[in-house]
Amino acid sequence: MNSDLTIALAEKIIGASPPSSAQKAARDGIKDYLAVTLSVTEGHINDEGWLQLCKLWPERDPRSLALLLGYAGHALDFDDFHAHFRGHPSTVILPALFAVFPSQAVIDNGRFLNAYCVGIEVAGRLGLAMTHQHYQLGFHSTGSLGVIAATAALCYLLEADVDTTACSLGLAATQASALRAQFGSAAKPLHAGLAAQSAVTSYQLASAGFSSRPHGVIDAFLDAMSSKQAIPELLIKDWGNPWRIETPGLEFKPYPTCAGTHSAAAVTQILRDRWLSSGKTLAGLIDNIYRIDVAFPLGGDIAANIRIPENGIEARFCLEYIIAAMLIKGDLLLGDFTEPQLDPQIMALAQRVFRNPDRSVPPDVLAPEKRFHQITLLLSGSMQLSHRLDRQQFLQLPVDLKQKWHNSLPNASYQEIETWLDLCLFDAPDSAMSIRQKLIASLN
Amino acid sequence: MNSDLTIALAEKIIGASPPSSAQKAARDGIKDYLAVTLSVTEGHINDEGWLQLCKLWPERDPRSLALLLGYAGHALDFDDFHAHFRGHPSTVILPALFAVFPSQAVIDNGRFLNAYCVGIEVAGRLGLAMTHQHYQLGFHSTGSLGVIAATAALCYLLEADVDTTACSLGLAATQASALRAQFGSAAKPLHAGLAAQSAVTSYQLASAGFSSRPHGVIDAFLDAMSSKQAIPELLIKDWGNPWRIETPGLEFKPYPTCAGTHSAAAVTQILRDRWLSSGKTLAGLIDNIYRIDVAFPLGGDIAANIRIPENGIEARFCLEYIIAAMLIKGDLLLGDFTEPQLDPQIMALAQRVFRNPDRSVPPDVLAPEKRFHQITLLLSGSMQLSHRLDRQQFLQLPVDLKQKWHNSLPNASYQEIETWLDLCLFDAPDSAMSIRQKLIASLN
Repeated sequence: MNSDLTIALAEKIIGASPPSSAQKAARDGIKDYLAVTLSVTEGHINDEGWLQLCKLWPERDPRSLALLLGYAGHALDFDDFHAHFRGHPSTVILPALFAVFPSQAVIDNGRFLNAYCVGIEVAGRLGLAMTHQHYQLGFHSTGSLGVIAATAALCYLLEADVDTTACSLGLAATQASALRAQFGSAAKPLHAGLAAQSAVTSYQLASAGFSSRPHGVIDAFLDAMSSKQAIPELLIKDWGNPWRIETPGLEFKPYPTCAGTHSAAAVTQILRDRWLSSGKTLAGLIDNIYRIDVAFPLGGDIAANIRIPENGIEARFCLEYIIAAMLIKGDLLLGDFTEPQLDPQIMALAQRVFRNPDRSVPPDVLAPEKRFHQITLLLSGSMQLSHRLDRQQFLQLPVDLKQKWHNSLPNASYQEIETWLDLCLFDAPDSAMSIRQKLIASLN
Repeated sequence: MNSDLTIALAEKIIGASPPSSAQKAARDGIKDYLAVTLSVTEGHINDEGWLQLCKLWPERDPRSLALLLGYAGHALDFDDFHAHFRGHPSTVILPALFAVFPSQAVIDNGRFLNAYCVGIEVAGRLGLAMTHQHYQLGFHSTGSLGVIAATAALCYLLEADVDTTACSLGLAATQASALRAQFGSAAKPLHAGLAAQSAVTSYQLASAGFSSRPHGVIDAFLDAMSSKQAIPELLIKDWGNPWRIETPGLEFKPYPTCAGTHSAAAVTQILRDRWLSSGKTLAGLIDNIYRIDVAFPLGGDIAANIRIPENGIEARFCLEYIIAAMLIKGDLLLGDFTEPQLDPQIMALAQRVFRNPDRSVPPDVLAPEKRFHQITLLLSGSMQLSHRLDRQQFLQLPVDLKQKWHNSLPNASYQEIETWLDLCLFDAPDSAMSIRQKLIASLN
């Protein structure tokens, strides 16, 4: 155990200097975060948990803002994902940054974008250092690791010194929590909000001089939450080479469901398109399916932990419902994954979906980057359609962020969306400031 | 994994009916908590962290109150300890109860005392169910388990139904955190405050209808934070037989230092008294000591993790400083364990203390109830004094709570303390109410 790991990490954080290519990736990340967040804060989508939180946290102080913006960004489970982090980093990091952002001073766009890059860097490195043990034990990295990543970003943004940064990181680590067992409930996005809030608390306390052990806390954290399987040196080794916001980069979701279900949804879309493009009718497909097999490496459905959903939130984690919804509607629509009621036609078809782990390939835990989904539609008359897509092939499919804005904000005018997208270019000196002001105004 | 464990626990909590003997133990627990808390909130002891927290949390809403009262109760590390919990339960449970307590209505004394008994019961059971793995991994039970115990107490106090209780427990579990690596800093008492605050948040969210998974979260929590070594059935088996607030009961601290150092302090006091009662001078003892050996089962000093303290807070976890302070002063005085500066005479003597784990007995982790301290003073002229006290013998030594009030509140008048002690008898219909009002008034 290197007792100076916390100090070494603090030095990397405050001395970070991401290249302009990383800043470009950061601008895209902000564009994606804002679309999914405004969908909730502006009320385009009705989210019950959001209304409850707003009543319980009516204040607009930095801690409350971080909580609300973190929840809102993750409420639809439509926000970005990072493979090294194995979670959703932006919806913890950006809420913390927007929450503490001093409203009087003009913050430099470059410093804001760099702070976000630093947060993603620490997020990805924490995921790697923890090894797969952390997720396997049952922790939800978005919350349990995100709090430290967001704290790192805050310390960079506000130009904290090494000691304040080290103490902030230790205070964040000792507040780290979140369990995957809450997937399928509003507690999942709450994890993002609580982590953003704890990051703000950690920075506020440390910068006020509140005492925290400067050494050994990050090491102890890695041990405690990985069954002592962590590899601490991955936190700092080869810093900035590459920058993780670029490689492997942020994955923007094309569908408002759990990331672990996306290649299954895409395969289903491909099979449906193939059927329709041959001139046959949709009813001819749906009515003739008597069984749908979905194959993946053993354990590859760990995140999709719900078999029979009871509402739209649970449906985001249900492979069966997602495959059926895609077959019937040709896309995964926000409304089918946010409302308390589920579509009975989708539910009926979902009963014909069967999970068939493929035991001839290594289990998912040993090679998560090789995860695939193969879907086979068995039709009456001994006909069958089958297709397979692996994670890497899926990631090559383009995601149209502008289209995502229009899908996420159905009640916004074209001009309103254009104004937001212009701000996301960060080509005015006060772009970061303006985005913050408009985002906070959307809460009222 | 029993997926209905959370529901079963919720039913035990809301249906609990502790006997009057448990209520008697609860009254003593409240008496002890108030003494150590008022010492900080009334400013008898200057605590830097307390002043910083008060600035950052100026509000008096239930969440802020819970945070402040939890921190204050643990700031001196002079509050009670529970062996099954392996932590400090009252400073998380009571702050949560006092914080949500509706100020308009008169709360029944019996319900208040029972709620506290329920909290201690759940605290002790969580400690047993986690096995020693939880603490060994690096978690600080006061925070990491206390949050669930306090939530249980709140659900009882406010007569929540089974579903609300189950959801509250799940929301508490997914917020559970705190690392032992923060021992020796103000972050340790902060753990108690954050846990009390999270308990209030959990109850507020669940009772507002915020969605949380009702099943499987407590099971997942036990797995995640014990490296899957937990024994879940210990959470509910033989409920109320005995009540853990009575057996093994709350341990009230005679000294303002880490509980793991107390039998060492008591042995030192016995050796010192023996020397002085033979008519010799204190200087004759101190000046002639060239070495002090302290023996304990291997690993028995896990909590006393500081060898060379840099301030009074760190000194609470330093066996060497504690033994030296007792030899020189004949008691462990609050002032020696709260100030930034350390006594140079004590520091000089502390350098002669050596830790000598006794490898002829089973390691502490295998038999924590058999922990002992044996201290041997080696004096010039080949003379030596030695004494040994085990944990059970130490626990038989009486603690005078009234004297503790006077030691903890040096600036309070005799009459003020008598008024508080009268309230702690709970023999007026509004005793619980009055204690709450006076306690919150002490924050201003």
